[in-house]
Amino acid sequence: MNTFGTVFRLTTFGESHGTTVGGIVDGCPAGVAIDTTFIGSELRRRREGDSPAPLTTTRHEPDPIEWLSGILDGRTLGTPIAFAIANQDCRPEDYNALRHCCRPGHADYTYEQKYGLRDHRGGGRASGRETVARVVGGAIAKMWLKERHITISSRCNGFLVSCIVTGLPAGVGKPVFDRLNARLAYAALSIPSAQSFATGQEPDDWRLPADSYPDQWEPFGSGPNLTTTNHCGGIQGGISNGMPVVFHVGFHPPVTRPEGMMCRKADGSVAEVAPHGRHDRDHSSRLPVIVESMAAIAIADLLLCNQSRV
Amino acid sequence: MNTFGTVFRLTTFGESHGTTVGGIVDGCPAGVAIDTTFIGSELRRRREGDSPAPLTTTRHEPDPIEWLSGILDGRTLGTPIAFAIANQDCRPEDYNALRHCCRPGHADYTYEQKYGLRDHRGGGRASGRETVARVVGGAIAKMWLKERHITISSRCNGFLVSCIVTGLPAGVGKPVFDRLNARLAYAALSIPSAQSFATGQEPDDWRLPADSYPDQWEPFGSGPNLTTTNHCGGIQGGISNGMPVVFHVGFHPPVTRPEGMMCRKADGSVAEVAPHGRHDRDHSSRLPVIVESMAAIAIADLLLCNQSRV
Amino acid sequence: MNTFGTVFRLTTFGESHGTTVGGIVDGCPAGVAIDTTFIGSELRRRREGDSPAPLTTTRHEPDPIEWLSGILDGRTLGTPIAFAIANQDCRPEDYNALRHCCRPGHADYTYEQKYGLRDHRGGGRASGRETVARVVGGAIAKMWLKERHITISSRCNGFLVSCIVTGLPAGVGKPVFDRLNARLAYAALSIPSAQSFATGQEPDDWRLPADSYPDQWEPFGSGPNLTTTNHCGGIQGGISNGMPVVFHVGFHPPVTRPEGMMCRKADGSVAEVAPHGRHDRDHSSRLPVIVESMAAIAIADLLLCNQSRV
Amino acid sequence: MNTFGTVFRLTTFGESHGTTVGGIVDGCPAGVAIDTTFIGSELRRRREGDSPAPLTTTRHEPDPIEWLSGILDGRTLGTPIAFAIANQDCRPEDYNALRHCCRPGHADYTYEQKYGLRDHRGGGRASGRETVARVVGGAIAKMWLKERHITISSRCNGFLVSCIVTGLPAGVGKPVFDRLNARLAYAALSIPSAQSFATGQEPDDWRLPADSYPDQWEPFGSGPNLTTTNHCGGIQGGISNGMPVVFHVGFHPPVTRPEGMMCRKADGSVAEVAPHGRHDRDHSSRLPVIVESMAAIAIADLLLCNQSRV
Repeated sequence: MNTFGTVFRLTTFGESHGTTVGGIVDGCPAGVAIDTTFIGSELRRRREGDSPAPLTTTRHEPDPIEWLSGILDGRTLGTPIAFAIANQDCRPEDYNALRHCCRPGHADYTYEQKYGLRDHRGGGRASGRETVARVVGGAIAKMWLKERHITISSRCNGFLVSCIVTGLPAGVGKPVFDRLNARLAYAALSIPSAQSFATGQEPDDWRLPADSYPDQWEPFGSGPNLTTTNHCGGIQGGISNGMPVVFHVGFHPPVTRPEGMMCRKADGSVAEVAPHGRHDRDHSSRLPVIVESMAAIAIADLLLCNQSRV
Repeated sequence: MNTFGTVFRLTTFGESHGTTVGGIVDGCPAGVAIDTTFIGSELRRRREGDSPAPLTTTRHEPDPIEWLSGILDGRTLGTPIAFAIANQDCRPEDYNALRHCCRPGHADYTYEQKYGLRDHRGGGRASGRETVARVVGGAIAKMWLKERHITISSRCNGFLVSCIVTGLPAGVGKPVFDRLNARLAYAALSIPSAQSFATGQEPDDWRLPADSYPDQWEPFGSGPNLTTTNHCGGIQGGISNGMPVVFHVGFHPPVTRPEGMMCRKADGSVAEVAPHGRHDRDHSSRLPVIVESMAAIAIADLLLCNQSRV
Repeated sequence: MNTFGTVFRLTTFGESHGTTVGGIVDGCPAGVAIDTTFIGSELRRRREGDSPAPLTTTRHEPDPIEWLSGILDGRTLGTPIAFAIANQDCRPEDYNALRHCCRPGHADYTYEQKYGLRDHRGGGRASGRETVARVVGGAIAKMWLKERHITISSRCNGFLVSCIVTGLPAGVGKPVFDRLNARLAYAALSIPSAQSFATGQEPDDWRLPADSYPDQWEPFGSGPNLTTTNHCGGIQGGISNGMPVVFHVGFHPPVTRPEGMMCRKADGSVAEVAPHGRHDRDHSSRLPVIVESMAAIAIADLLLCNQSRV
Repeated sequence: MNTFGTVFRLTTFGESHGTTVGGIVDGCPAGVAIDTTFIGSELRRRREGDSPAPLTTTRHEPDPIEWLSGILDGRTLGTPIAFAIANQDCRPEDYNALRHCCRPGHADYTYEQKYGLRDHRGGGRASGRETVARVVGGAIAKMWLKERHITISSRCNGFLVSCIVTGLPAGVGKPVFDRLNARLAYAALSIPSAQSFATGQEPDDWRLPADSYPDQWEPFGSGPNLTTTNHCGGIQGGISNGMPVVFHVGFHPPVTRPEGMMCRKADGSVAEVAPHGRHDRDHSSRLPVIVESMAAIAIADLLLCNQSRV
């Protein structure tokens, strides 16, 4: 399914070099003020990255959003919010060389095995281009969360995105399968090129348990915090405790090498192919806003579920 | 929700010191042969651990399963398979000291914040006891997978469970949100005390990307493998490529210290409490079968989804 | 799936002549007082019917419920409420004649086509016996609804059950697919032998539209009602308007004739078979509590969804 | 939720007088040939009705579809199929008189109670305009069903749409809650102005049970049919038996009277308002294609579920 969430739900659509990418946010409460300037700045973070250096793709798209439904006079109606973003700077002919061969490390081969056919142009649905719809959905979630004084921020360091959520009340998450950490991992690992996930203070070596666990209670009234440390990352038994929620997502570097790759052809032979498409050499500065967006969607969903205490 | 899965679905129920724990497996195909000896051995792995050393809980329960429905003449009927396991060695009075106070690092506080009341006896629903139902559900999934020559095994090393799935065909997983790695992470992080998740070859330092990525294709006919290495852990673009699927789950050590813990009382004060319940000092040898069980359920679910190529 | 509902969810299990029938209610809010006497009286309505005449099955079962989880000190914990009811008065040997033949009008043939095998004893999962779990789930929903002053009652006249829900606030139901009437129809038509459904005032001829539609508004302050009539049955545009919700469910009579039926055998030939099982000649007086139960579950689910206004 | 279906899923969006209506079909198998001429003819049936007489709305829209994703070279990719249809002939100013008052029998009042605000222009989301997306989704489902030799047709007689599905194999539908008849009722009752539903041969009086029930088996080899009659409408125990599936959906007439209606104002007073929008006096000839579309979606969904025999 191309849908994430139970109550606050994002469905995305669109191939990288089709006409359009977009999505539908369903389940957003009525009356939320939509700040299109904020959404534009979030899309710019995705497009250009948080860092000043021009390391990212040379595909230039201002990403103007066409709002199709669900908003009237600048506020959400409670009905589905559909949006579309045209793929303007497409050069599908750049991908002709890939029509009948599969790049290493990419989804070309697995899509073909799954569906029997695929859109070879720029990775089709597997392209990072799809994440533009996640960022729009995440920005809408953030605006609703902001009204509840919940903020989400992150930074990327060596392909590891560390994310912090502040203001989340205690009691969010479900006890067994839909734990807060499980939902955050599900959301984060669905991002293209994500490989690992961890909650809590960043460990020196993630394969070793933190020996200082568990966090100790602060006596009530002695200060603003519930616990003296936050090794658990604000989650106990899968449910938020009111402290900041902290988690980390590791990514692998982009796998398409413009200078050429050994690709698998339809007959099983392997040969070098140099794709002409535009590809990131380093997408790390573009990752934080995508991680934040998925976290915002997962948390808005659990918070809305929480209103019925289930 | 206390349900995991879309087609092959496990719902669990039961508090640690209530009368019963159990579950319902819904969506298991009809005609699967049920080997109760195998299920018993899986439960023994959960109860006693894979290691010879007696490090685990002193709570002794043979876990006899009462099969309530869904099986006739040793085969599944395609209808819900309900099962119950009595909690025999309960001593709920051991937990009286915890009725009005919350242990550090445990779900006591967060449950109370979420529901307004809780079952204080042995952690209630947050107890590791709940995982007995996951192991039964996982064993049923394994039996169906085994008919398709798919096997799952794992080992635990320093609280890190490394798991390998062999025989999985290419094409399993969905391209956007329900990627194979995202579903495995969702399943694994729902296990009590799980903290981290990663796919692929175990990295020396999970915060650094593997520089040898991507895996290179083997020319067809040159050997049994699709790729020369398997750094991607059998997953490309969120979908299995036919190579072994490899992933790792990190856990934190048990948080209940029988010798006494600084607990938070109802008035917000903090005082030492020594619980009388039985608690693991080291549960690492019991973790592999639980990780395998959740992986089996997640994979059976995606495989069944795959039959309709969605 | 053997689950109904999104937030308040009932999953049922059990074959008619297996050891047990039962279910799990997941998503019931914490703190609801459970009145087991009320549940017993609801089960008695299902077993013996609302009418004094002894028209129903001669299978006698007091239906003692074994509560497996989710309740502590007479209140719900917010965790799954599992329950089991033993099948005591089973005589599976009565059904030997049906092992290899299919009754007319019954699920025997279609189950066999679907699953390749079936439990022939008393209809297996297709038996009316399964509805015992719906009545328990419905009774729990009713107790939560009663705390909100919402009541559900019904009567059966000529195999048509007419049901009325009072106290439901305006705004319940979702605008497009999950309309209140669509969810009630979905719930009601899932009852064995249900054939038809209608909302609103009972029409003289359901094939003709009511010409008095639409209901006219009462001016505010002129009386207790929103509208002068209630032809729409309390539903406008798929959403409750605060007036009583009225709907009707039509059933066909029981299809098993103990005196003998022309059954289809495995080779496709047709021959008379007289089953020895116990079968209702007229189950109409047992239907109201089942319809009310499914309505209670559907409405509790929509009300809980409504707390997040989606 | 604005989504219908489990595997084959339609999500719709759009307000009647917003810029656009449309939807996403998710879960459609890859490789289905898309016949846009057929889709156009289905939309024409919705717009102009099956009858020759010009009884329907005077709003004229050719409904050109913009395909946003999921189709390449005339075939589905297995990815989400998004489509949008511009609302061209909008005159939202016609609805100014309705901004602060609620028509009788319409969703104006209930939307306002549910969301606190609403799009007053032409009924917003509650308008029949939303069904254009259902017809597109249904046409895609029909094309997939046609490849399996399954056809759906219907006619409307006195606001009762009778629908017949031929070619459906035995075994479709789930035994308990997701019975074929329950899913069809859920789908059909979600159509605006639908009031009633019944399966099987149209009864003379739907409140009386058909006394000729059950249908008798044809001996195998004696002819093309499974049963001598088809009173059950091709459904036994909630599962298709291979005979034609027959069901009926009753609707109420349009509730907006252009000549004036007694509307409820914000202060609770009632006054006559004459809306200037365009409204059907008789929409019966437009209903069949909408009923067929929802049936096609429900059946495609169950058939795809059926591939995993659940």
